[in-house]
Amino acid sequence: MFETLAAALNWFGIVVFAVTGALVASRKQMDIVGFVLLGVVTGIGGGTVRDLLLGRAPVFWIGQPEYLAVCAAVAAVVFFTAHIPESRYRLLLWFDALGLAVFAVTGAETAFLAGAGVAGAIAMGMITATFGGIIRDILGGESPVILSREIYVTAALVAACLYVALAAAGVAREVALCAGFAAGFGLRGAALTWNWTLPRYRPRPGR
Amino acid sequence: MFETLAAALNWFGIVVFAVTGALVASRKQMDIVGFVLLGVVTGIGGGTVRDLLLGRAPVFWIGQPEYLAVCAAVAAVVFFTAHIPESRYRLLLWFDALGLAVFAVTGAETAFLAGAGVAGAIAMGMITATFGGIIRDILGGESPVILSREIYVTAALVAACLYVALAAAGVAREVALCAGFAAGFGLRGAALTWNWTLPRYRPRPGR
Amino acid sequence: MFETLAAALNWFGIVVFAVTGALVASRKQMDIVGFVLLGVVTGIGGGTVRDLLLGRAPVFWIGQPEYLAVCAAVAAVVFFTAHIPESRYRLLLWFDALGLAVFAVTGAETAFLAGAGVAGAIAMGMITATFGGIIRDILGGESPVILSREIYVTAALVAACLYVALAAAGVAREVALCAGFAAGFGLRGAALTWNWTLPRYRPRPGR
Repeated sequence: MFETLAAALNWFGIVVFAVTGALVASRKQMDIVGFVLLGVVTGIGGGTVRDLLLGRAPVFWIGQPEYLAVCAAVAAVVFFTAHIPESRYRLLLWFDALGLAVFAVTGAETAFLAGAGVAGAIAMGMITATFGGIIRDILGGESPVILSREIYVTAALVAACLYVALAAAGVAREVALCAGFAAGFGLRGAALTWNWTLPRYRPRPGR
Repeated sequence: MFETLAAALNWFGIVVFAVTGALVASRKQMDIVGFVLLGVVTGIGGGTVRDLLLGRAPVFWIGQPEYLAVCAAVAAVVFFTAHIPESRYRLLLWFDALGLAVFAVTGAETAFLAGAGVAGAIAMGMITATFGGIIRDILGGESPVILSREIYVTAALVAACLYVALAAAGVAREVALCAGFAAGFGLRGAALTWNWTLPRYRPRPGR
Repeated sequence: MFETLAAALNWFGIVVFAVTGALVASRKQMDIVGFVLLGVVTGIGGGTVRDLLLGRAPVFWIGQPEYLAVCAAVAAVVFFTAHIPESRYRLLLWFDALGLAVFAVTGAETAFLAGAGVAGAIAMGMITATFGGIIRDILGGESPVILSREIYVTAALVAACLYVALAAAGVAREVALCAGFAAGFGLRGAALTWNWTLPRYRPRPGR
């Protein structure tokens, strides 16, 4: 059952990030092929960076066309439906939050299973969680979400740490995955809802 | 003869992308070393990303200094001649169009030969075609060509699809390469000439 | 003793680049987790790109948590002390200069030992030296240091060339490393101090 849950979470993260890529394309008024490119690159971006760093090449989507096809289909659906939600940007942030929390735990797990150790697994969770969005924002010419004032990277850190701590403590993997995801998404969601921030560096800005 | 045509096309793509990198350097008024860096990185960038994703490391230019040397030489030539053309930006777009169409077919072919399957080969063609220019525009602080209103990514998609379809249908590889290149370059060139666009996402922009 | 000097230089480069990442975070008024992320990514970024291009994956910091821990600790220290220096931006430029010169020689050496040849080693030195800073500036939304008017890429080129020339001439590696570092840092430092520039491309800018 674990294989199924981890795989399902991974698919879920890919789909929600593909949605965010297509939403950025909608904000830039791209054509449908632009939607597909941004959707695909954002959906598979985080996992691709993870695989490269772990030395797992060819990367996961080569020879598994279903990942590319699903991301492309998701982007096409967004092309025809993105006018429906009231605020595309809020929607983007919430889908991004889902993907952030999912990839923080699945990225940490993948690295863990590959023997990366505790710190390596946490770092890989944060990188897998954030790099899809970073690539999306660079390609789309958007201000990077990673710089947003509300708690963002911290949510990925919390999710990855909780997963690694529980997994290292011998808790069942499904429970660790769910707990890490819930903590990360809950934290980022609360930050989006109530504008939670951590104390920021302030003295004499911009020097 | 096939080896020769594919290798020749690859060299051609590297050289034209090196020219575009140097032209961006000229727009930013860099010094000659900046020209060389942007020329080299743009020339070898798309193929480097392709090799990394396919797990072909060390990447192609390590141990083959002729790629680095030619890109550097091309960039140096541009440093001394870029004042001649009437519009450096139009020139950049046309050279970029040549490289886009070439790398769409050679990238797809490389992935195909590496066993990537139809969807993987098409995706790799698009990535090889666009990432050199993406890296160039990021390093040079330019607005990404990928966001241009005229048909761009679509031209790479058409070139890669046509090549893959013909190759899968058993057509001689040289013919498939040439047909894919001609279709991609023709489409992008027509878009540049007559401002062809696909329907773009429009309702309620920027939300 | 060579192992020790090369390893020590590598650690030194990682630490100074981590400082620059944290200083960019301070300019963007990020929270402490943002400092840690930018510090870690900048510290290990250049070496990570180097390892990927050379096919050395998993990359060096996976399974060696001390790199991540030190970068995180350095970033945390900067979070609490960055208000002390008079100009954080000048400090950033000088630490960046140290890291640039160090990674130009250690990157060239790593590639050299991996059998990359003269041109490959020089290119790898320049890439290792510049890509940590490039990733930092992209993630932090800063204007890329690589575009700065004062001599920058040239300093990395000089450092890498001098190291490779001396090493190829049979000079002791420690001497070659120190000479290359001194030349690169001296050149960049002089450029920062006296605004040294190379002749820049000028005729009819921006076309």
